Amino acid sequence: MDTRVEQDTHVFDRAVALKPLATGAGASAAQRFRGRTSADYANMVGPYGGITAAQLLQAVMLHPDRLGDPVSFTGNFAAAVADGQFTIEANPVRTNRSTQHWTVTMTQAGDDGTVAVVSTATVVTALRRETWGATDLSMPSAPAVDAIRHMPRIPSPAWLARYDMRWFRGAMPREWNDQESPDSVTAMWVRDEPPRPLDYPSLLALSDVFYPRVWLRRARTTPIGTVSFTVYFHVDDDTLAACGSRHLLAHAKGQRFFNGYFDQSGDLWSPDGILLATTHQIVYYRD
Amino acid sequence: MDTRVEQDTHVFDRAVALKPLATGAGASAAQRFRGRTSADYANMVGPYGGITAAQLLQAVMLHPDRLGDPVSFTGNFAAAVADGQFTIEANPVRTNRSTQHWTVTMTQAGDDGTVAVVSTATVVTALRRETWGATDLSMPSAPAVDAIRHMPRIPSPAWLARYDMRWFRGAMPREWNDQESPDSVTAMWVRDEPPRPLDYPSLLALSDVFYPRVWLRRARTTPIGTVSFTVYFHVDDDTLAACGSRHLLAHAKGQRFFNGYFDQSGDLWSPDGILLATTHQIVYYRD
Repeated sequence: MDTRVEQDTHVFDRAVALKPLATGAGASAAQRFRGRTSADYANMVGPYGGITAAQLLQAVMLHPDRLGDPVSFTGNFAAAVADGQFTIEANPVRTNRSTQHWTVTMTQAGDDGTVAVVSTATVVTALRRETWGATDLSMPSAPAVDAIRHMPRIPSPAWLARYDMRWFRGAMPREWNDQESPDSVTAMWVRDEPPRPLDYPSLLALSDVFYPRVWLRRARTTPIGTVSFTVYFHVDDDTLAACGSRHLLAHAKGQRFFNGYFDQSGDLWSPDGILLATTHQIVYYRD
Repeated sequence: MDTRVEQDTHVFDRAVALKPLATGAGASAAQRFRGRTSADYANMVGPYGGITAAQLLQAVMLHPDRLGDPVSFTGNFAAAVADGQFTIEANPVRTNRSTQHWTVTMTQAGDDGTVAVVSTATVVTALRRETWGATDLSMPSAPAVDAIRHMPRIPSPAWLARYDMRWFRGAMPREWNDQESPDSVTAMWVRDEPPRPLDYPSLLALSDVFYPRVWLRRARTTPIGTVSFTVYFHVDDDTLAACGSRHLLAHAKGQRFFNGYFDQSGDLWSPDGILLATTHQIVYYRD
């Protein structure tokens, strides 16, 4: 047993650590937090989008007035997050009997002291009750986790090493030769590296784990950036606990690529076949 | 030719009409608008969600500082909109060279004068440039519009009469007999009634036109309410103009139904086979 992993804080928890700031005067329930970008999750420009999303959600998770668990998250990435400190404000704008609506804003101060918005999010949390249920989406068929090799270890960007990714469909092209792929589907087994028990912020972060569909489709790397990212959660604490730190099946496909923006839809499944989250995003791409 | 339709304002335009309010002091670019619910789009409790979404987007469309056209919209329905006046504030929180990020809030004053948030939205607008493109989603096969009868005219709720809907798959169950359907797919031809040239707000409103997937799946009506609704736009002015006021093909399916919330994904196509919008929502349902 690796006691170090148990005793030390996981790299993911360090990355989403937020410190509450003093509440200002007035009746507002908005709560501000201070955080810091993590070099461990650095992407080519700014941090991995999934970790920024997780930080935005974490502010809601830590808010003392939170009602229930996340049902829906939409994050909007307005600018690359600069290395260093940021502030997140989480505001419960409407609290009903069983649902709560949140707006969340991440800001950073520039060198000249001006404060700019870098990300926004809206979140719905809810108290769930047991009801009739069904899953209409089909789980993609998949080989056993151990039958697939881990993706080639590459040193940069850093965030890639934070996940154990085992692609079995639509792997990153080996050659960037402009040979169009017939589709834009990727499927993999994936978990945090080192392993970590699944929770809402980590499931959110995992939902952004797919490399850009336009790279797969065109076998060409071009600059891209997610502008809006949505995750619907289909879990409760028991479902998360049953997943533990095992691999999830993550599957995504592009839908339409048009004049600088494409969208993708994806789904994340427990190894036991439970649909944990559905996810969508729209991404800027340069030709 | 019906000259009355040409001369009079279309019922949709009356419903999304907003009046700019005086800008307050300070440097903020936020702009407030006054609007009013439309009895023409009334749903069972509050207005049709698609019209509320269109009103939220309309505030962005009318904002004097808007850059480019809508790429992404997420609306969160925090409470039923009460009949009468509402205020929408549209705030361009970040403007880049070719993209702009918006937060939008709809509020209403209660009988006691307290102001409460009823809806929020985030919107991304962008200047698009011509790029490589592709569509990976397949258009559902469909009979000709004229080969399908209009859905049965029912007097209530009012919003149903605002659309010419021609279901050819997954029509509303004829009997609410608790016989589970094998899937939750609906497909239809649909346009505004009377016909109206397609634009961004009307395409957004059309994206919410599907009746609740849980009703289809269970052949049982239970209380439902969309909590979050996302649309990705894959159009420009030329695409919209080419659609004119013809029927669109609208297709949606449920994905997972779990403890009070289900999600659906949908797609809207021009009669010429162009994928105009992809749309997702998560919906509360009672057992």
